[in-house]
Amino acid sequence: MPSFDIEVKIMPRAGLLDPQGKAVGQALSALEFESVGDVRVGRAISISLERPDRETALADAREMCDRLLANPVTEDYEVVVESAS
Amino acid sequence: MPSFDIEVKIMPRAGLLDPQGKAVGQALSALEFESVGDVRVGRAISISLERPDRETALADAREMCDRLLANPVTEDYEVVVESAS
Repeated sequence: MPSFDIEVKIMPRAGLLDPQGKAVGQALSALEFESVGDVRVGRAISISLERPDRETALADAREMCDRLLANPVTEDYEVVVESAS
Repeated sequence: MPSFDIEVKIMPRAGLLDPQGKAVGQALSALEFESVGDVRVGRAISISLERPDRETALADAREMCDRLLANPVTEDYEVVVESAS
């Protein structure tokens, strides 16, 4: 069965407070990086998956996000499926 | 000054143990997702930055990773610079 590399990016939903991002932004300013605007911190998850085809891999990856990986109230996610090299 | 959206992806270095990824992989298996292989969990950080040009934005973003965002011993990072819409 073909193997796929799933790349998931989970970010705090736009408009919601992101205290971790705010802390990172303040730390960057303290390090004298100028003109740092909004900073948001989320999670990047890579999953290797054996599925018959790309569509099944994408559907399963989205279900993983809905059921486990992302918080549906506070987070948005993006899924990218690549064929494993 | 033009504004850029910086997308940083920080992942545990290949070959190093990733306990968080292992825990997520086991949780996915417990939810009856089949054939889940290696899972790795890292951080996704988005930063909006005002810089004169794309090259300066990229150089500053890489310096942020080296000095604050990533652990140079245990993590690898990728930086993507996009013009803010």
